[in-house]
Amino acid sequence: MPNPWDGVVSDEEQRAYKAAGFGRTAGLGKRPALIIIDVQYRTAGTKPMPYFEAIKEFPTSCGETAWEAIAQIQNLLTLFREKKWPILYPFISPKQSFDYGRIADKIPALMTVASKGYEFVAEIAPQEKDILLPKKHPSAFFATPLTSYLIDLGVDTLVITGCSISGCVRCSTVDAFAYNFRVMVPHDACYDRSSTSHAVNLFDMASKYADVVSTGEAITALRALS
Amino acid sequence: MPNPWDGVVSDEEQRAYKAAGFGRTAGLGKRPALIIIDVQYRTAGTKPMPYFEAIKEFPTSCGETAWEAIAQIQNLLTLFREKKWPILYPFISPKQSFDYGRIADKIPALMTVASKGYEFVAEIAPQEKDILLPKKHPSAFFATPLTSYLIDLGVDTLVITGCSISGCVRCSTVDAFAYNFRVMVPHDACYDRSSTSHAVNLFDMASKYADVVSTGEAITALRALS
Amino acid sequence: MPNPWDGVVSDEEQRAYKAAGFGRTAGLGKRPALIIIDVQYRTAGTKPMPYFEAIKEFPTSCGETAWEAIAQIQNLLTLFREKKWPILYPFISPKQSFDYGRIADKIPALMTVASKGYEFVAEIAPQEKDILLPKKHPSAFFATPLTSYLIDLGVDTLVITGCSISGCVRCSTVDAFAYNFRVMVPHDACYDRSSTSHAVNLFDMASKYADVVSTGEAITALRALS
Amino acid sequence: MPNPWDGVVSDEEQRAYKAAGFGRTAGLGKRPALIIIDVQYRTAGTKPMPYFEAIKEFPTSCGETAWEAIAQIQNLLTLFREKKWPILYPFISPKQSFDYGRIADKIPALMTVASKGYEFVAEIAPQEKDILLPKKHPSAFFATPLTSYLIDLGVDTLVITGCSISGCVRCSTVDAFAYNFRVMVPHDACYDRSSTSHAVNLFDMASKYADVVSTGEAITALRALS
Repeated sequence: MPNPWDGVVSDEEQRAYKAAGFGRTAGLGKRPALIIIDVQYRTAGTKPMPYFEAIKEFPTSCGETAWEAIAQIQNLLTLFREKKWPILYPFISPKQSFDYGRIADKIPALMTVASKGYEFVAEIAPQEKDILLPKKHPSAFFATPLTSYLIDLGVDTLVITGCSISGCVRCSTVDAFAYNFRVMVPHDACYDRSSTSHAVNLFDMASKYADVVSTGEAITALRALS
Repeated sequence: MPNPWDGVVSDEEQRAYKAAGFGRTAGLGKRPALIIIDVQYRTAGTKPMPYFEAIKEFPTSCGETAWEAIAQIQNLLTLFREKKWPILYPFISPKQSFDYGRIADKIPALMTVASKGYEFVAEIAPQEKDILLPKKHPSAFFATPLTSYLIDLGVDTLVITGCSISGCVRCSTVDAFAYNFRVMVPHDACYDRSSTSHAVNLFDMASKYADVVSTGEAITALRALS
Repeated sequence: MPNPWDGVVSDEEQRAYKAAGFGRTAGLGKRPALIIIDVQYRTAGTKPMPYFEAIKEFPTSCGETAWEAIAQIQNLLTLFREKKWPILYPFISPKQSFDYGRIADKIPALMTVASKGYEFVAEIAPQEKDILLPKKHPSAFFATPLTSYLIDLGVDTLVITGCSISGCVRCSTVDAFAYNFRVMVPHDACYDRSSTSHAVNLFDMASKYADVVSTGEAITALRALS
Repeated sequence: MPNPWDGVVSDEEQRAYKAAGFGRTAGLGKRPALIIIDVQYRTAGTKPMPYFEAIKEFPTSCGETAWEAIAQIQNLLTLFREKKWPILYPFISPKQSFDYGRIADKIPALMTVASKGYEFVAEIAPQEKDILLPKKHPSAFFATPLTSYLIDLGVDTLVITGCSISGCVRCSTVDAFAYNFRVMVPHDACYDRSSTSHAVNLFDMASKYADVVSTGEAITALRALS
C-alpha cells in the first residue's frame, strides 16, 4: 500500500532514512485510548466547504478535508465505545482577556475566533464520562493533566486523531513518544490545511515517533487486541 | 530573499497559509540565549562525508550538511561569547543499561552508537560556565531543567540551532513557543538528513512557532539589541 | 520578631538547621507577581465560622483563620493593583463526571463539594486581566500553563498566598523554587486547617524554599522595589 | 499501632482532619516500583554519627537516623529484587560550574559538598538494570524522565523511601499523587534531620497524598500482591 508521503518525500530520501534504520514499527500495547484533538468548528467549519471559502468562516478552518477525517474518526469512536476503551478530547479553550503571548504574535487571527468555533463538531461530540482537556498551547500534554488521566486509566497506547497534523497532532505525538506511550496515527483520521506539510509530517512521525497507518488498518489491529 | 521551503511547499499552499493569517513575525525580546542541540559526532560524523558514507560511521549522522551548519553556529557562538549572553547545550546522553522504551522500538540503531559519537563536535564545544543539559528524549525541554536555567537567567528569547531540524530542533521550538519564549531559528545553522523534511519543518516553524531567518540576518538583528 | 513556628519546632531543631546552613534569605527580584491559591468559598466558608461548624458547610473549609488571611491578601491586592503588577489565581476547578484518581481515594469528600464552593471569595475576587488558572491537582504549576504566563510576563518573583499552607501553597512554593523563581510567602496571608502542620510547613519553606515573612514585612519590601 | 506523628500533631488536630474526611487509604495497585531518593553519603554520612558530628562531614547529613532507615530500605530491596519489580534511584547530581539559582541562595552549603558525598551508600547501591535518575531539584519528577520510565514499565504504585522526608520525599510524593500513581511511604525507611518536621510531613502525606505505614506493614502488603 502506498504511503501518504510517497511522491512528496522522494524515493532517495526514503532510502536514506531506511539505510540509517529509521521507521521501524512500535506496535500496540494492551490498553489503548483514543485521542481526538481540536475537532471543533474552528478547524472544520460548520459544514464542508472549499478551503478559501472555509477560512472566511474561521481563519483556522481546514475545509473539506476535515470532514473526510471526521467520518474516519466516527469509525474509531464506534469501536472505542463498543470496547469501553477511554476516549479523550484535548481542545483549544476560548481565548480570555488575559491571553496573549507568542500565539498572538505569530498568528493574531487565532485570538478572535467566534465562540461557535470552540464547540465540538457534533458528529464526534463527547459523551458523559469522556475526558475533556482544555488547552492553551499546541500539545495535548503541555500544561494539561492528560498524563495523569492516562496513568490513572493504565493506558499504554494512544490512537491520535484530529487536527492539525503539522501542529497539535504532530507535537502531541512527539510528547506521547517521549512519555513512552505507544502511538498509532491513523493518517486519514487526521487533517490539515496543507497537503505537502500534511504528507511530510506523517513521514516524520512514521520515521521516528509513531506507527502511521490507515484507519482501516488501525481498526483491524485494535480489534485483534483481546 | 527566497525562503528555504520555496519550491517544496507550493506557492498555492503558501498563499493558503497567508490568507488564514499565519506566519507573522514574533520579533526578539531583550535577553537572548543560544541553544545548540545535539551537535555531537553522532549527528555530524568525525569529518565531512557524503550521507551514505557518513551513516556507516554513525547511523544518525547527517553528512556534509552538518558541517556547513557548524560553521554558522561558530559565527553565532562568537557573537554570544562577545556579548556574554548565555549558551546552552542540550545533548543526547549515552544510552545506559536501563534505557529502552519507544526509541528502541522505532529506531533501534540509536541504541548502539559508539561512545565517541556522544562527544561534542570540537569546533563548537562548550566552555566553562556554558550550561550542559543531557537529555533522553527529543525536546530540549522534556525531562530536563532547561526551563529552570532560562528563568534564572532572565532569558526571554531563544536562538535555536543544531540537529535535527525535523526532530529535536522542531520539537524544542514548539515547546519554547508554548512556554512563551520568543524563538529565532537561523535555518542554515540547523541541519538534517532529509532536504524535503528539512524545508517543510522550517516552513511549519515559520508559519506557527518561530521567526526563521538566515544566520546573517539573525546576527544583524541580535547585534541591534542594546 | 518571633517566627510562626517558634514553640512548635524546638529551639534545638532550629539550631540543627542553622548549623547545617539552611534558611538563608533569597531576596526579591525585580518583577513580582501575586499568586492567590484556592481562595474559594470551599476553603473559607461563606462567612467566618469556627472550624467544626465551617466543615458542615464545606468539608474543605478552614474556618475563621481563612478570613484573617483574606484581610491580609486584600492588602497585598491593593499594592499589586496600584503597581500594575501581575495577579494570578490558581484555583480548584469543579469536579467533572470523568474526574476520579488518587484524590477520590484519599479524600472522597473533595469530590462532592457544592458548586457555590468553587466561587472566588468576593473580597479578593479577580478583575478583568487577572489571570485565572483552573487546576485539578495540588500545585499551581502542575498541569497548568502558569509557567508560560510567568515567562511571558517576565516575572522573576512570586508572592504566594492562600490555602492550604500544608497543601497547595507548600507544593506550589516547592515548584516555584525548582523553576528558580524567588518566592516570598507572607505567612499571615496564608491559611490552613491545622495549627501544627501550618507552623511546620512554614518552617520547612523558610528553611529550604522561600522567604517567609509577615504581610507587613512583605509590603515594605515590595514597596522598596523601584 | 501508634502513628509517628502522635504527640506532635495533637489529638484535636487529628480529629479535625478526620471530621473533614481526610486520610483515607488509597491502597496498592498491581505493579509496584521502589523509589530510593538521595541515599548518598551526603545525606547519611560515611558511617553512623550523631547529627552535630555528622554535619561536620557533610552539612546535609542527617546522622544516625539515616542508617536506621537504610536497614529498612535493604529489606525492601531484598523483596523487590526477589520479585524482579523495578527499582529506581533519583539522586542529587554533583553541582557543576554553571549551577546556581535559588538553591545557592537558600542553602549555600549545598553547593560545595565533596564528591564522595554524591556516591550511593554502598549498603543500598544500585545494580545493573536499576534505573538512575540524576536530578538538580527536590522532586524526583521535576526535570527528570522518571514519568517516562514508569509509563514504559507499566508501574501503577510507588513505594517511596529515602531522604529527606520534609524535602525530596515529600515533594516527590505530592507529584506522584498528582500523576495518579498510588503511593506508599514506609515511614521508617525514610529519614530527615528534624524529628518534628519529620512527623508532621508524614502526617501531611498520610492525610492527603499517600498511605504511610511501617516497612513491616509495607512488606506484608506487597507480598500479598500476586
